Amino acid sequence: MNQLIPLPTSVQPADGVFLLTADTTIAANPATAEVTAIAELLAAHLRPATGYPLPVRPADGPPISGRLFSLALDPADSSLGDEGYTLHITPDTVRLTAHQPAGLFYGGQTLRQLLPPAIESATPQPGPWPLPAGMIRDTPRFVWRGLMLDVARHFFGVADVKRVIDLAAAYKLNRLHLHLADDQGWRIEIKSWPELARVGGQTAVTTADGRAWPGGYYTQADYAEIVAYAAARYVTVVPEIDMPGHTNAALAAYAELNADDQPRPPYTGIEVGFSSLAIDKEITYRFIDDVIGELAALTPGDYLHIGGDEALATDKADYVRFIERVAAIVAGHGKRVVGWEEIGQAHLSPTAVAQHWAPGHAAAAAAQGAKVILSPAPRVYLDMKYDEATPLGLVWAGKISVRTAYDWQPETQLPGVSEDSLLGVEAALWAETLTTIDDVEFMLFPRLPGVAELGWSAAGRDWEGYRPRLAAHGARWEAMGVNFHRTEEVDWE
Amino acid sequence: MNQLIPLPTSVQPADGVFLLTADTTIAANPATAEVTAIAELLAAHLRPATGYPLPVRPADGPPISGRLFSLALDPADSSLGDEGYTLHITPDTVRLTAHQPAGLFYGGQTLRQLLPPAIESATPQPGPWPLPAGMIRDTPRFVWRGLMLDVARHFFGVADVKRVIDLAAAYKLNRLHLHLADDQGWRIEIKSWPELARVGGQTAVTTADGRAWPGGYYTQADYAEIVAYAAARYVTVVPEIDMPGHTNAALAAYAELNADDQPRPPYTGIEVGFSSLAIDKEITYRFIDDVIGELAALTPGDYLHIGGDEALATDKADYVRFIERVAAIVAGHGKRVVGWEEIGQAHLSPTAVAQHWAPGHAAAAAAQGAKVILSPAPRVYLDMKYDEATPLGLVWAGKISVRTAYDWQPETQLPGVSEDSLLGVEAALWAETLTTIDDVEFMLFPRLPGVAELGWSAAGRDWEGYRPRLAAHGARWEAMGVNFHRTEEVDWE
Repeated sequence: MNQLIPLPTSVQPADGVFLLTADTTIAANPATAEVTAIAELLAAHLRPATGYPLPVRPADGPPISGRLFSLALDPADSSLGDEGYTLHITPDTVRLTAHQPAGLFYGGQTLRQLLPPAIESATPQPGPWPLPAGMIRDTPRFVWRGLMLDVARHFFGVADVKRVIDLAAAYKLNRLHLHLADDQGWRIEIKSWPELARVGGQTAVTTADGRAWPGGYYTQADYAEIVAYAAARYVTVVPEIDMPGHTNAALAAYAELNADDQPRPPYTGIEVGFSSLAIDKEITYRFIDDVIGELAALTPGDYLHIGGDEALATDKADYVRFIERVAAIVAGHGKRVVGWEEIGQAHLSPTAVAQHWAPGHAAAAAAQGAKVILSPAPRVYLDMKYDEATPLGLVWAGKISVRTAYDWQPETQLPGVSEDSLLGVEAALWAETLTTIDDVEFMLFPRLPGVAELGWSAAGRDWEGYRPRLAAHGARWEAMGVNFHRTEEVDWE
Repeated sequence: MNQLIPLPTSVQPADGVFLLTADTTIAANPATAEVTAIAELLAAHLRPATGYPLPVRPADGPPISGRLFSLALDPADSSLGDEGYTLHITPDTVRLTAHQPAGLFYGGQTLRQLLPPAIESATPQPGPWPLPAGMIRDTPRFVWRGLMLDVARHFFGVADVKRVIDLAAAYKLNRLHLHLADDQGWRIEIKSWPELARVGGQTAVTTADGRAWPGGYYTQADYAEIVAYAAARYVTVVPEIDMPGHTNAALAAYAELNADDQPRPPYTGIEVGFSSLAIDKEITYRFIDDVIGELAALTPGDYLHIGGDEALATDKADYVRFIERVAAIVAGHGKRVVGWEEIGQAHLSPTAVAQHWAPGHAAAAAAQGAKVILSPAPRVYLDMKYDEATPLGLVWAGKISVRTAYDWQPETQLPGVSEDSLLGVEAALWAETLTTIDDVEFMLFPRLPGVAELGWSAAGRDWEGYRPRLAAHGARWEAMGVNFHRTEEVDWE
């Protein structure tokens, strides 16, 4: 039980093992659609490598013969909160208990990590499949444990995004922030403004060796498929439309969004800070109301991200006025507004959320009662190179080793922002230099699990303890086919 | 100069008079479109009774012969603010000066009151037309000096509303709050929800003697005509859609706005507190976004009023959630939200405005930084009867004599609301018992001028000083054809 990431709240090993065998049945209690779905998802993870049938049965149905693995909701133990669980393994049974369904899902992820790495294979492996006996009780530190994926600079299709969701959820991350629009591309169909995707979706960042790269966008059906896939894994999709800067793709698609009514040419470089929606035109706000309205209708989660970073082509008074009005539009569609920390310069409602990355406005947001997500660029902008030898990535926020990404303390990251103001942590993967899912995996692994642990584990973390745990995961990623960076910081098993 | 209402800030009488004669020219300086329009509007007021041509000429044009009456903007004297003016009358000239155009308009209203009452006649009168010499300097106390007209319980057409604007503007009121929707009627065309006006516009309150009364509604062109007419008189139209209660007319027009999807029957009684939009349905907020969006586009003024009073069919938590979301929708359309003081129970932005009438939530709004408009029902709900003999009106907030409406202090009206929080005062004319413009005039006059003075005049007010000034206005109303209540409280001239 000593290789778990994120580190659980408490682990009490016991003697013996539970052997997952061909006659094991997974019992759902109660056998609601949601609990049954969680059990089926876990069974689906375990069937390919074991080759076992692992049927899911209602706990109150016909008697179950053979070995029992039960998932049960306990309405009484509210101390487990919305996401906590207990996992009690004896040589005879496995009992996974939670107060809410998400806890059962997370207990299932812990269980995967307790089995040998070969459990992650897509084809039958020899086994055996022991689970060490013991008791785990585990609840998360932060409610927001996120990963941002930039699909604007280069586009990643539905299958790639599902892969990212699988890998993030395995480490108990629960937010997928999709950066859906930027200067170089608009990636979501908006039915009331069809040229956004049709024109703005065509472009992407030109590669470093000068090749144009294809664009792409999600239809609303694609997006709904991503949202549903994520929701089944207790991941909330947080869509971002970055405004008022980072908007060249929209400004290219619709001339009327420009102050001078002239459409902007498409942009495929990697500079920032040159674009701005027309702050003084009412059509800008009709456009935003339409876009936010369609996104809100497609997004069951509570949050909509309006960007707001690096609006260097917008003067401060205009910026503040713009952010306050757009924040109101988001609230008007029934969602909580999230923005990069620059929004702290505006008047914010206490339901607003500011995402720290660097510029120094997070404390101003917190002082207004807004919550803060920590994404310090020199720590968790995972598109930064690991070191000078990394073939992908940028270096503007520094080089980020595995240790650098892991070895920091959320509670002391921001002077003037107390722990009460922290909603959680989020890794960010910008995609100027990344074009394939292999690239994405290489930058995320092995750094992402460390950020996940920062978000989940309240105590007991340190680099020397983390290194050997992380090392044990290399074999799992090999079994999963994850293209990870075999850094020398870790002694891979 | 001792019959002016509202009382000016300072008056210094001098010897002699300026005689308005057939050779008087009105000079506009500078002769911008706006200053010229103000001069033309003043000339149009003075021509019918005098029969004089009173041409309007640019001050910097060809030399003007004859007597001179000049309107001039003074960019230097910013102490006059947006609405103040000076009026300097000598036997030779009249010089009206202001920092902003609105001040010229208000100086013109003062000038009308300095002329004999017959100046208000629509047909030529014998004259002469002396203006007493002296110097007036005058700036308002409050930025919000309003009149609310309920066009929902009974409908008043465009011509009636223009008449009300004329009468209000003559006393330097600058807000016309139109109560456009209530249980008994929906009075504004909304193109995206056409049944609101088509169905909801058909009804009105049944008269006390049991006769059904016709409904009616403003087309968007009608509304735009009212807005433009008001704007030319420096009156900002503040449209109100009362929500979530007072909504039966909408609930009758669209079944989907009801929690049970059943359309409500039309309502023509005068009870309150029974209706509510469906708080938990997303379509409710799409409806509101559409309605607010169309109204915002039609309304150049900064304010949109969302009602929020007497939502007795909505529980408090739902009410708060509703108001916060609707306030955000208003802000998202670039407007400041105004609501009856019950909105003080919700979290408000500092740009919000709460309108006090009775229930005790205004201090909570002010404590959040919101501004407060004073419309205390026992003082300025001008649909209350003057006394037991008044043939029209209700009595639930008491009987309101001319003195009662006048003789109170805005600064001490609300414990816990300091003068810094006061935006101004507003009289309210609910229309359950009023069906014609004669009815409206009878309830407004002579009480409305007193409310106007409460809004404009910072000092020097008292009932004994006000009575003779008010008495002098009876003859003006007779000349204007105003149907006023000849109360025995005043010794009419």
